[in-house]
Amino acid sequence: MNRFEKEDLQREMAEVERHLTACLRDPGFGGAIGEILRDVGESKGKRLRPRLLLLAGRYGERFETARERLCRLGALVELVHMASLIHDDIVDDAPLRRGAPTIQSKYGKDRAVYAGDLLLSRIVQSLFRDGFTRVGAFFGEAVEAMCMGELGQMACRFREDTTVDQYMRNIYGKTAALCRLACRAGAVESGCREDVQAQLEDLGVNFGYMFQIRDDLLDFVSDAAREGKCTQMDFREGILTLPVLYAMEKEPARQKIVALLREAEAGRFGEKEAQCLQEVVASSGGLARAAADMEMYAQKALQAVETLPDHGVSDVFRGLLQKSQQGGCR
Amino acid sequence: MNRFEKEDLQREMAEVERHLTACLRDPGFGGAIGEILRDVGESKGKRLRPRLLLLAGRYGERFETARERLCRLGALVELVHMASLIHDDIVDDAPLRRGAPTIQSKYGKDRAVYAGDLLLSRIVQSLFRDGFTRVGAFFGEAVEAMCMGELGQMACRFREDTTVDQYMRNIYGKTAALCRLACRAGAVESGCREDVQAQLEDLGVNFGYMFQIRDDLLDFVSDAAREGKCTQMDFREGILTLPVLYAMEKEPARQKIVALLREAEAGRFGEKEAQCLQEVVASSGGLARAAADMEMYAQKALQAVETLPDHGVSDVFRGLLQKSQQGGCR
Repeated sequence: MNRFEKEDLQREMAEVERHLTACLRDPGFGGAIGEILRDVGESKGKRLRPRLLLLAGRYGERFETARERLCRLGALVELVHMASLIHDDIVDDAPLRRGAPTIQSKYGKDRAVYAGDLLLSRIVQSLFRDGFTRVGAFFGEAVEAMCMGELGQMACRFREDTTVDQYMRNIYGKTAALCRLACRAGAVESGCREDVQAQLEDLGVNFGYMFQIRDDLLDFVSDAAREGKCTQMDFREGILTLPVLYAMEKEPARQKIVALLREAEAGRFGEKEAQCLQEVVASSGGLARAAADMEMYAQKALQAVETLPDHGVSDVFRGLLQKSQQGGCR
Repeated sequence: MNRFEKEDLQREMAEVERHLTACLRDPGFGGAIGEILRDVGESKGKRLRPRLLLLAGRYGERFETARERLCRLGALVELVHMASLIHDDIVDDAPLRRGAPTIQSKYGKDRAVYAGDLLLSRIVQSLFRDGFTRVGAFFGEAVEAMCMGELGQMACRFREDTTVDQYMRNIYGKTAALCRLACRAGAVESGCREDVQAQLEDLGVNFGYMFQIRDDLLDFVSDAAREGKCTQMDFREGILTLPVLYAMEKEPARQKIVALLREAEAGRFGEKEAQCLQEVVASSGGLARAAADMEMYAQKALQAVETLPDHGVSDVFRGLLQKSQQGGCR
């Protein structure tokens, strides 16, 4: 039952794309609305969240009959992700996303505010029109967690007393909450037993943690980072990520990092400072410890799958985890 | 049946406030979240939208049993309004709202983006948790219309070819869509017949038009406006409101206004220009025509009530309309 076939997932993902296109239709109102929606539709992500949702859905006894609805839900989870990226880019003042100009850099911050709101409104309409009453509230819950993660992160900016606990709470909201929603929505809509649903939610959360820590590590281990170029954007903005927080647990690394943070706060964080941070975080073991955590969350995510009855899905999850450890999160 | 008693509405509005407080509870996450939610809760508006909803609800045969749910819905409609004000203030860069500092001026634009999103997420959670499946999609529809109104208005900025039709489409989204939602949600949730529901929606739309035109007129007829001080903020931002659009239908007013618009675009719109605009719009009959339109929409709104069976509500609607013609819209 629900035996996994690779071709099925491909067909489902094509269906997800069709629903995305429908949700991003131009209302024909003029303004820049049509162009914005077209740009949003053309930004191709890895669609990891719909994939998580569809894989989780395979553990439910209603999977076959729910398949079409799961594809719709997959599109809605991706839309939440898209809306959050549009609003995040306003805050980060980011010029590029997935290699393309961000909505805010192309259309201005003002339009980006309403573009994100417009996507959220489309999600709400679809959740009600298609009768997703079992999972609708979870969407609201995830968006609330995402807001709290971002607001929590802002509250920690330039604060050297930020703790690893605070960091984990913030990345729960920023990344893990939506991965959890994907698994939860897939599980509930397909009729999983409660214990299976809980395991799948755990998988989503750990998947999300792994993802975000990986993203934060990339700021240090990419080629650009080694050369001190255009990286450590988080640190420049005063955001302390896991490798930095671990490095700060020991002296003299802590003192050095605090001094660099003050430079960043004063807008004096250049190539020299970036290389200095890079060296301190690496030599103090901050990178290694963060990498070990990433591995731990990947293992936890896998364990959640391995206790579940095998429909051939765990292999795919495993592949997704490995690809995500290597590839990009967003 | 459903005979209107003033004390009942007062009791219901107190219940609306209780639900608002519950929806604005501090999640205890830290950051500035608790403070922001407290500030939002303390900003006292006239609660016109929940009032519209509760009055519309009186025409339904399920009113008595639905009363408690209508109070909840009233709070949610007001929350949509609050969320939209937070996001609008980001765009307008407004320092004050209802006499108090705006969220964006007090906490920064970045936090204001997520504060608005957080309110939207709370609305979605409540709509699903309380089982508002009959009206949930209408909330999404109204938010979509509001985004389109704002984006439509942005597209018209500094454009002297803006038409009265475009203006009406934009204010439908900016103001009328939410008044319509209030009446629609009240009507549907209380079990109004379809024709009564349609009439109440008409009332909401016309009420909204009247509101917004009144707001736009105030920019010209308030004492400050007559002295050319700190007013015509819309025109400074390149937004052509109804009095201006009517004034532009005739020469030589049109030429003068276009010249002033170019000054505003170049950031050279001072007291002298404001007084000049004031004179042109008044002397060309723009003010009088816009005021006549306002009166017409008020009459249309009243007509919708007067064809309905009288539960004693039409008097209250009439009072609300008159108060709104004189007092503030937001």
